[in-house]
Amino acid sequence: MSFAAATEVVRGDSRTWMARIHPGWDIFGVPNGGYLMVMLARAMQAEAGGRVPITLTSHFLRPGRPGPVAIVVETVKAGKTLSTFRATMVQDDKELVTAVAAFAEGGVPRPDAQIIDGSPPDLPPPEECVLSEPSPTGPFPPPFTGRIVLRLHPDDAMSLGGARPGIARVRGWFRLHEGERPEPLAAILAADAFPPAVFNTHLPLNWTPTVEMTIHLRDPQPHTWLRCAFRTRFVTNGFLEEDGELWDRDGNLVALSRQLALVPR
Amino acid sequence: MSFAAATEVVRGDSRTWMARIHPGWDIFGVPNGGYLMVMLARAMQAEAGGRVPITLTSHFLRPGRPGPVAIVVETVKAGKTLSTFRATMVQDDKELVTAVAAFAEGGVPRPDAQIIDGSPPDLPPPEECVLSEPSPTGPFPPPFTGRIVLRLHPDDAMSLGGARPGIARVRGWFRLHEGERPEPLAAILAADAFPPAVFNTHLPLNWTPTVEMTIHLRDPQPHTWLRCAFRTRFVTNGFLEEDGELWDRDGNLVALSRQLALVPR
Repeated sequence: MSFAAATEVVRGDSRTWMARIHPGWDIFGVPNGGYLMVMLARAMQAEAGGRVPITLTSHFLRPGRPGPVAIVVETVKAGKTLSTFRATMVQDDKELVTAVAAFAEGGVPRPDAQIIDGSPPDLPPPEECVLSEPSPTGPFPPPFTGRIVLRLHPDDAMSLGGARPGIARVRGWFRLHEGERPEPLAAILAADAFPPAVFNTHLPLNWTPTVEMTIHLRDPQPHTWLRCAFRTRFVTNGFLEEDGELWDRDGNLVALSRQLALVPR
Repeated sequence: MSFAAATEVVRGDSRTWMARIHPGWDIFGVPNGGYLMVMLARAMQAEAGGRVPITLTSHFLRPGRPGPVAIVVETVKAGKTLSTFRATMVQDDKELVTAVAAFAEGGVPRPDAQIIDGSPPDLPPPEECVLSEPSPTGPFPPPFTGRIVLRLHPDDAMSLGGARPGIARVRGWFRLHEGERPEPLAAILAADAFPPAVFNTHLPLNWTPTVEMTIHLRDPQPHTWLRCAFRTRFVTNGFLEEDGELWDRDGNLVALSRQLALVPR
């Protein structure tokens, strides 16, 4: 099933969109958070009159399961420059995810006001990276990875059987499957598609529940391959942040992400 | 007027808290975003049964002005580990700020699961940094800086008359005024109290409107001095992010912040 079909939203009543969590998009049996965020973004975008998401925050409340969901969208403000929405995904009368996002006209380059103080992660070409495929026997790599193409830097592919390098970093390539139409919202999925960066350290290889995730989409264009890097710098008091950078193949910044998660037990 | 008094919230009806935007907490005539976020956090915390905020996201919709505001708090989920709230600040029947936040029991150190891959910014002691005081003649430094104690690294104090170093970075010390009781929520104010990091580059010295700001509070303790560093790495398509790190005097991480803002014109 394609990304577009798996994340489709259909208008219900005036404020509600109908969608479906499809099987096979899960990790440890829990639907992937980025996957749910795409559906929330799609429902809000349908209300945004051609504007594109520029910042999207989600709080993950309950895990959910495959089956129908409703997405309730509320227009907070439809402004001259920005449109702001709240959206909530509901299943069995319970909120699974609540989100807030701002949308804007995309792609207004201002070359007089550009600063790029960073560069894409150093990655071998996709074909020399390690393809992540669902494990037939264990929970990891999760079923979800079969829905997309994820190719990890050989040095960071601990979760695929390599040694743990001891650095909370994961780098790799992301794309939708061959034949699927690239679209900007896929970057939201990419930002939550990789194994947790702390899996490359001494921390337990276990469910790492996201409390909150915020994604800044800095480029409204669709891209095939995304060049991604994720890093955790601080694990303290039972919480960790994970910061992501997503770049296109030509070295342009596509998105920044940050999530707060509970430390795996 | 103290921080505690200026950010006080008083219970109205069951879901609404009454507060007041006080004069003198503004920048270019607009109340400081961090100041408003503190009031939102305070109202939510009053519903959180002793839990502390761990991640707080705000979208800034309209500038607001000194005078009364209402804060409508909605409990999204009161869970075993986390409590999640939405809150909206309303003035003259218009939403100024909408927020979503998660609260948890604070301070559960897990020394077995600790990673600190970073260090506090290199700063001279507070007394050797440059005190930011409101300009009697121009918009900058803004009136707001008189409400707190802000001492900038001498190399980053462009806004106080130094040369512009060309790097989108601002480092400095933050504290409440002598005699005020330190409290954890002051870190929220600190995260939005410094001049924009891009003021130290070639970009215009003008209003830099925050679209969205997210703060992770990683330490529930109150601190007197906070050692802070802010950096913007990417200015693209009319938007910029600003990332902040807040540390205590002993070198412990207190908070991480990130905001998305429009590029100043």
